[in-house]
Amino acid sequence: LGLKDDCALIAAPPGTELAVTTDSIIAGVHFFPDEDPGAVAWKALAVNVSDLIAKGATPLAYLMSIALPGAPDHAWLEKFAAGLGAAQAAFGCHLAGGDTDRTPGPISVTITAFGVVPEGCVVRRSTARVGDQVYVSGTIGDAALGLALRRDPALRATCGLNLEMRSVLEGKFSRPRPPVALIAALRTCASAAMDVSDGLIKDFDRLCRASAVGGRIEVPHVPLSAAAHAVVAAHGATLIDLITGGEDYEALATIPPSRAAEYERLAAAAGIAVTRIGAIEDASAGISAIDAAGVPLAIARTGWDHFLPPDVT
Amino acid sequence: LGLKDDCALIAAPPGTELAVTTDSIIAGVHFFPDEDPGAVAWKALAVNVSDLIAKGATPLAYLMSIALPGAPDHAWLEKFAAGLGAAQAAFGCHLAGGDTDRTPGPISVTITAFGVVPEGCVVRRSTARVGDQVYVSGTIGDAALGLALRRDPALRATCGLNLEMRSVLEGKFSRPRPPVALIAALRTCASAAMDVSDGLIKDFDRLCRASAVGGRIEVPHVPLSAAAHAVVAAHGATLIDLITGGEDYEALATIPPSRAAEYERLAAAAGIAVTRIGAIEDASAGISAIDAAGVPLAIARTGWDHFLPPDVT
Repeated sequence: LGLKDDCALIAAPPGTELAVTTDSIIAGVHFFPDEDPGAVAWKALAVNVSDLIAKGATPLAYLMSIALPGAPDHAWLEKFAAGLGAAQAAFGCHLAGGDTDRTPGPISVTITAFGVVPEGCVVRRSTARVGDQVYVSGTIGDAALGLALRRDPALRATCGLNLEMRSVLEGKFSRPRPPVALIAALRTCASAAMDVSDGLIKDFDRLCRASAVGGRIEVPHVPLSAAAHAVVAAHGATLIDLITGGEDYEALATIPPSRAAEYERLAAAAGIAVTRIGAIEDASAGISAIDAAGVPLAIARTGWDHFLPPDVT
Repeated sequence: LGLKDDCALIAAPPGTELAVTTDSIIAGVHFFPDEDPGAVAWKALAVNVSDLIAKGATPLAYLMSIALPGAPDHAWLEKFAAGLGAAQAAFGCHLAGGDTDRTPGPISVTITAFGVVPEGCVVRRSTARVGDQVYVSGTIGDAALGLALRRDPALRATCGLNLEMRSVLEGKFSRPRPPVALIAALRTCASAAMDVSDGLIKDFDRLCRASAVGGRIEVPHVPLSAAAHAVVAAHGATLIDLITGGEDYEALATIPPSRAAEYERLAAAAGIAVTRIGAIEDASAGISAIDAAGVPLAIARTGWDHFLPPDVT
């Protein structure tokens, strides 16, 4: 209704269903209070699109509710709008409505995103089967390192990172790029999927529990960026830090063995790297992350908890 | 997907469209920080349902994003859940998904609500026509007085309100009851509608501007509760305070003269009071609120502005 009414109208094409998801980002929790406003807008949309992708749903539209600590600052809003426009273009969806409020607290942006999925084709998290291969898109741990670099810029020198490496890591934290081009491949091949937002291990654990199966992550196979490899080599972080760090916004999928080749082919055609990192096992095998020798790693904390420190600040 | 996946699936029945809306409520802005948690939940859903009703959309489901300042307090959450359950039952919709975050700021609840409307039947705010009658549901100004009483309990004695009157006014502020039973009547009879959330005069002004028409509110016809009458009689508030106070969550509708009798009949059958309070005029007539003598009232501030004081606290 042209953003000028009390509601928006959303019509899913015949034969499709609407997938809906909502996620908030809050200054001082999910982004730095002095973050580039364009990155704030980008991330607010990206974290929601990430959920749609993992369900095999094509982004369509979104509603945004934004709370600001005072009267809107024109320059801030202009950068925010530009970042939102860029994210919309990257993810293929448009703003359908929203709400603006003043808050005595920090800036907070809540987006509800709508995606379209052919009827009966949504990819659930509870339908992984014993014997499925476990795949993840992109690389894992970069966002956690980007956050660490923002907190402690000296880490860059300590770990011998060049400017490009720093920019890759910080970019993954502040402007995540969930793999929107992977949607068709997930819909076609995945038996189950979810996005990696709270840490690979924690989210894999959730997927296995929802599916009532066991499973293993083969940690040496988890894909890392060159920058992440450099940080680990310089003892700036451990592998466990990376696989429990959170904010990856990549797609974790279980693929039946008969579909694995097709999944790899469709992903390659879409320009998205996917890597086999483990397998689904019987529930009795439990859930584990194993090293090259097959020995389970001891992991004290599997990922991000909304009610534990640390904040980003 | 049973609240256990990344997204919810929403399917609108064939021949219908989905109306979607989002609104946040924030402690210290929209509710008192020490408010009954059940009332917080109720209001969070009610303010969204109010938007659906005004569009002629039947509430179906909602997503909720809640930000809490610390680890959830069990007793608080239990009361919150009970209030949400009561509101769901009253408004006929269910929780389809959501998100929980920690915040360094105040408690904030953002709901995105989904309603169903037959294809092409949504009631817009931009389609009022010259000659239409203006109707409002319920009574106006009670919530503003409820807020005033919460701020200054002495007002009760000053204005000679009995306990029941106080409870009516405070209840309208903390547990608004948008007229869900009026949906069919609005869909059948209204040329345009919106909900009254930021003050009757401000919202009427918006409706007229969106429709490119003028219009008048006949202030003596604006329906007041017995409690509001008592406060005005005791000089505890002016009529202008009431028609600019905000948070009424009633339905403001324009009804073609040929439909007015039917609208009144359908509303009565649904048990919802509706009152004719003005008319739509040519744009050249402007937008006014007139007294019994037909003289326009001077109104300095037409309603609630998200970026002006006062907060509720």
